[in-house]
Amino acid sequence: MPETPQRSLAALIFNGFETLDLFGPLEMFGTLEDRFAITLVAETAGSVVSRHGQSVVPDATFSDDERYDMLLIPGGRGTPIENARPLVDGWLAEQSATAELVLSVCTGSGLLARNGLLDGHRATTNKMAFDWVAGFGPNVEWVPKARWVEDGKFFTSSGVSAGMDMALAVIERTVDRTAAERVAKITEYDWHDDADWDPFSKLL
Amino acid sequence: MPETPQRSLAALIFNGFETLDLFGPLEMFGTLEDRFAITLVAETAGSVVSRHGQSVVPDATFSDDERYDMLLIPGGRGTPIENARPLVDGWLAEQSATAELVLSVCTGSGLLARNGLLDGHRATTNKMAFDWVAGFGPNVEWVPKARWVEDGKFFTSSGVSAGMDMALAVIERTVDRTAAERVAKITEYDWHDDADWDPFSKLL
Repeated sequence: MPETPQRSLAALIFNGFETLDLFGPLEMFGTLEDRFAITLVAETAGSVVSRHGQSVVPDATFSDDERYDMLLIPGGRGTPIENARPLVDGWLAEQSATAELVLSVCTGSGLLARNGLLDGHRATTNKMAFDWVAGFGPNVEWVPKARWVEDGKFFTSSGVSAGMDMALAVIERTVDRTAAERVAKITEYDWHDDADWDPFSKLL
Repeated sequence: MPETPQRSLAALIFNGFETLDLFGPLEMFGTLEDRFAITLVAETAGSVVSRHGQSVVPDATFSDDERYDMLLIPGGRGTPIENARPLVDGWLAEQSATAELVLSVCTGSGLLARNGLLDGHRATTNKMAFDWVAGFGPNVEWVPKARWVEDGKFFTSSGVSAGMDMALAVIERTVDRTAAERVAKITEYDWHDDADWDPFSKLL
């Protein structure tokens, strides 16, 4: 028997999601398949096209009435931040209320912020889109220099590649340090394990 | 008009391809959409499932009779290395003969090696599967310590994450240094731009 339970992880996908925001963390979690069971969730059935043109087929839709232990919200051009999207907003609020952990990469935190889910929390986002995203969460304590920010059930990362460092930190929290280091080794990934490491904050 | 032409890039996908082997490099190339036009190519139509369970829809199949400027061959459990696969082998030989550049990530170089495409060339591969892959290419000069190896038209990278560093090196060669640095900045990626940097060689 595994030392820690297997957690269900729902990764939200939408047209225009940033490719590596999604697949970087999924590589890390997926390497520990006995610990994390990944489901790609979209608003409706039918394939979704990434920011770079790859068609991906969701495993589930909002209407499936499933609950997940963890959520992963990528960012990218298609992130539905600017305008309310009742189905997305409803799913996010409902799932976040019961999820053990809610993770976002890049501008994905803007979607959480617009829905008030990060109110009173510390959070970060993409450095080149920082001010724009921060505008959607006036009651969020936005952290300008961070590879990722952990605050309660929320892990929010900086842009794109930062999602992989955050995913390993989530593995450290939910499984243990050894497991996170093992995944980094298997994927030959140079893990930046310091949440305060952020050379990209100078882009602000 | 762009300073350099747009190149067509065919990324081979098969059941069990390693998720980040494919999507890491595609994030980098895809960020320069005016320079690289990405096509996912599979043996046959219908979705392909990654090593971590994500279903991806190919844009083209072997029978489409298209030629591409660049090939990207990921690795992973499903890489058809051990046994001859006439359709895959034929496509690879035909495309490699005319492509300007042939790239592989992780155990993807084993597929090139088994088909004799790397004979007389320097190449590398995943460090945990190094000896196994090297066995498929007795006439290849395998390099045990390298993040990636560039030799003529071939770029072969080490495991998984190394594909992103290699992709940026390919962007440097085909476009220029400034473009590679810009992609790294946009994706907040800490580019290891030294091909000899390889802390994972100690896993051998």
